[in-house]
Amino acid sequence: MSQFDNVSVIKKSNVYFDGKCVSHTVLFADGTRKTVGVILPSTLVFNTGAPEIMEVLGGRCRVRLAGSEAWNEYGAGQSFDVPGNSSFTIETLENLDYVCHFA
Amino acid sequence: MSQFDNVSVIKKSNVYFDGKCVSHTVLFADGTRKTVGVILPSTLVFNTGAPEIMEVLGGRCRVRLAGSEAWNEYGAGQSFDVPGNSSFTIETLENLDYVCHFA
Repeated sequence: MSQFDNVSVIKKSNVYFDGKCVSHTVLFADGTRKTVGVILPSTLVFNTGAPEIMEVLGGRCRVRLAGSEAWNEYGAGQSFDVPGNSSFTIETLENLDYVCHFA
Repeated sequence: MSQFDNVSVIKKSNVYFDGKCVSHTVLFADGTRKTVGVILPSTLVFNTGAPEIMEVLGGRCRVRLAGSEAWNEYGAGQSFDVPGNSSFTIETLENLDYVCHFA
């Protein structure tokens, strides 16, 4: 499914890390919220508030969760979970399209 | 109105000029299409296919339409029209949030 239907979208973008990450917020009828975004080639550390599921739509990334030594690689169609009140380091070598699902 | 309601949003972003411009495509029930996006500080030349109305949500820009010598400045709440099969040069000194309406 390449699109979300019957949703609201916040017009203003979310810009992080000087534009290395840009997303738009999507609101669902059931009250849930997701962001659709892109991360440009970079190595970034994201902090989480709520737990997140990061779904990779395109591109590849390497991810290391806070408190872990392991780097895991993810590509299109794969997802990874990030605990709340935590952080993860993500390395992208090409544009990474993603959907971020909040718990 | 800070959001579009009852729309579909294409999950994958549109990335132009190495990420200096990132947008997401929004589809409306009546078949029309808009993009919501951001332009990072830069001077860029955009080519148009269909005629466009660029609505500025936030930030400021200077714009020169193809074939014109004049630069016009636009800020939040203002819009400018661009003919189809044409181009415009846009200079942004801060992040520019916009909605692009297609005719």
